[in-house]
Amino acid sequence: MTTRQHCVSRDATDPFRHHRDRFVLPEGLIYLDGNSLGALPRNVAGRVATTVAAEWGNALITSWNVHDWFDLPGRIGDRLARLVGAPAGTVIACDTISVNLFKLLGAALKLRPGRTTILSDTGNFPTDLYMVQGLVDFLGDGHRLRLAEPEDVVAAIDEDVAVLLLTEIDYRTARRHDMKTVTEKAHAKGALVIWDLAHSAGALPVGLTAANADFAVGCTYKYLNGGPGAPAFLFVRKDLQEEIRSPLSGWWGHASPFAFDLDYRPAAGITRQQCGTQAILAMAALDSALDVWEDVDLAALHRKAMELAQLFIERVESFGSSHGIRLAGPRQLEHRGSHVSFHCPQGYAVMQALIADGVIGDFRAPDMIRFGLTPLYLGYADIWDAAARLERIMAEQRWNRAEWLTRKAVT
Amino acid sequence: MTTRQHCVSRDATDPFRHHRDRFVLPEGLIYLDGNSLGALPRNVAGRVATTVAAEWGNALITSWNVHDWFDLPGRIGDRLARLVGAPAGTVIACDTISVNLFKLLGAALKLRPGRTTILSDTGNFPTDLYMVQGLVDFLGDGHRLRLAEPEDVVAAIDEDVAVLLLTEIDYRTARRHDMKTVTEKAHAKGALVIWDLAHSAGALPVGLTAANADFAVGCTYKYLNGGPGAPAFLFVRKDLQEEIRSPLSGWWGHASPFAFDLDYRPAAGITRQQCGTQAILAMAALDSALDVWEDVDLAALHRKAMELAQLFIERVESFGSSHGIRLAGPRQLEHRGSHVSFHCPQGYAVMQALIADGVIGDFRAPDMIRFGLTPLYLGYADIWDAAARLERIMAEQRWNRAEWLTRKAVT
Repeated sequence: MTTRQHCVSRDATDPFRHHRDRFVLPEGLIYLDGNSLGALPRNVAGRVATTVAAEWGNALITSWNVHDWFDLPGRIGDRLARLVGAPAGTVIACDTISVNLFKLLGAALKLRPGRTTILSDTGNFPTDLYMVQGLVDFLGDGHRLRLAEPEDVVAAIDEDVAVLLLTEIDYRTARRHDMKTVTEKAHAKGALVIWDLAHSAGALPVGLTAANADFAVGCTYKYLNGGPGAPAFLFVRKDLQEEIRSPLSGWWGHASPFAFDLDYRPAAGITRQQCGTQAILAMAALDSALDVWEDVDLAALHRKAMELAQLFIERVESFGSSHGIRLAGPRQLEHRGSHVSFHCPQGYAVMQALIADGVIGDFRAPDMIRFGLTPLYLGYADIWDAAARLERIMAEQRWNRAEWLTRKAVT
Repeated sequence: MTTRQHCVSRDATDPFRHHRDRFVLPEGLIYLDGNSLGALPRNVAGRVATTVAAEWGNALITSWNVHDWFDLPGRIGDRLARLVGAPAGTVIACDTISVNLFKLLGAALKLRPGRTTILSDTGNFPTDLYMVQGLVDFLGDGHRLRLAEPEDVVAAIDEDVAVLLLTEIDYRTARRHDMKTVTEKAHAKGALVIWDLAHSAGALPVGLTAANADFAVGCTYKYLNGGPGAPAFLFVRKDLQEEIRSPLSGWWGHASPFAFDLDYRPAAGITRQQCGTQAILAMAALDSALDVWEDVDLAALHRKAMELAQLFIERVESFGSSHGIRLAGPRQLEHRGSHVSFHCPQGYAVMQALIADGVIGDFRAPDMIRFGLTPLYLGYADIWDAAARLERIMAEQRWNRAEWLTRKAVT
């Protein structure tokens, strides 16, 4: 695609062109931050309003049964399972990624007594590492977090590694770990693997079963458009479900929560991974947001995502090098996720100028401008236009404003 | 109050009579389950709709700053602090009670090295006990949960008790622990205390500072009407905040979450008790639900709650004993919370008959019918009428229906 007209033509035959109409997208804005907070699906407002007024307001406490609030985490989990290549009954929506990670890290460590290392890489999203740090400090007994560079992490798996914790798609560079190969190599050393799918689910086909993955966590407020701080999810492979016990053993994971026994007995299957009562308004929003995905062919969506990425990389590279802008992460599309980041001098100021010009991406320390290319509601012409606006900002040095350059320390 | 007319007169001068108009209450229903799911405040639907459409839909990712989503947990925490007798900066809204308990139990244990016991009582809400069981199993090293009867628990505090975990108001019997006395006795033995305020907050004045309480958790979906599964809260006394570190050390509790450091550094103050990204739709609902409380005199509200309880106990006892109905928990109002439960033969069937007659309470195994007397939106005549309907059901044996008597096993 070497002209804008070519992009417009491509949009006209895009199989996902009608999906765009299912989202609220402010007029004139090019939203390239759907990998941080997905856009609002049009049907969500009505579902949330019904949950508030008719379910909570009128049916009150009876809604737990009448409107099946109790089963929302499991029903949503089954819908998510299809999107991450897992069978029904292996995924549940609950809590946050951080909390779910603690549950799985704790459970996994107990499956590998005698091993003390949790291995991860320096490209992992920091909260994943923070959760490990909290866990190993709390547990003591020689447990530790060990970090390797992303390209060295597989070679770093040794016989002391109980758990390998990796995010499939790097939140900054979009570098993709090969889930199947990495999992095989970890298993060969006797280690378990927890995959963080925050930047994968809804962006590309995920193959948890195909990779024989042990555990996974994921996020629904990015590519899955579940809303700000929407419930996270977790996956446990079927044969591991009854072998593990969450350190966070709350009543929603009890075999019989309304018997009010004094003793905890874990529920069967994935249900035991629940802990406390879940936020039903957030669950309802997420459930309705997933309606958008019912007829989505994930392989076709991935093809489009890669075309958008290729287009954006080409367009930005056509002018970027003279401004010191260079691609982050691998160049080969098969080793990338759906977002695109560039190292960029004065990246924070550049992103502010771009936002002021109606293109929302984000900045990730120390020097990256990051763009989420969500194939469900972005077109080829959007990508062309975003690159063109970035080009103009760089050519005119529009980022050169004191309040953007003297950036406040991040808080 | 010995006649219905007396109750109607009392309602006419009730200082809280206008608060009722701030809630959605279905016509003809007497809702006595606000201690399980509080009624919907009228202003919530609008706030949630705005958060969905204007904030998420139109302002998208910028809402984290523009609409101050980041600070919602702390701002809500400060509003809650007033309701539980604590200063600003000591309460934060986040996660679930179960998860928050784990954070505080873990942190408290580390403050008492060498002690291995977490003490609680058999009247505690089971999920609190389940969380302790999960924690001590996970931690090993001789840590254990010890249980005493509620009336014996203070005497059971010994030098091995690291943490005493109690719910102020028993979820079944409404028995009230004396927070100040119990805390003093625990401190005298060197133990820390975690108070669960699930059935206290919004029902009666709570005095965390007055009791010199160490830690507390609480619920916002009961008397505080925050919505189904609304975010929980936790309290840490000021002088303990910097001494503890949550075992759940997620990025929202980091001193500088957007620096994306590889190492965890806890934020100052109560903020470090946050973990993962919070559900903003649920936070917005809760924030608006708290508007109702701005002009509430908690001492006056408590007086009304006790009058409602006294009235209900008197009315039910006037006919109950001949049907085997007897009051659960202490008779003296100063030792009670705001709900009232009765032991009742065929209690499950009786409650189903009552619900069919337009009075919603609930059943708690093994034999209790339970009534939440929420003083903010219930009147004296409501209480009179609810007791009258129960009397008629007992007199006419309306509970005697096969489908209610052959109750399904609780699940």
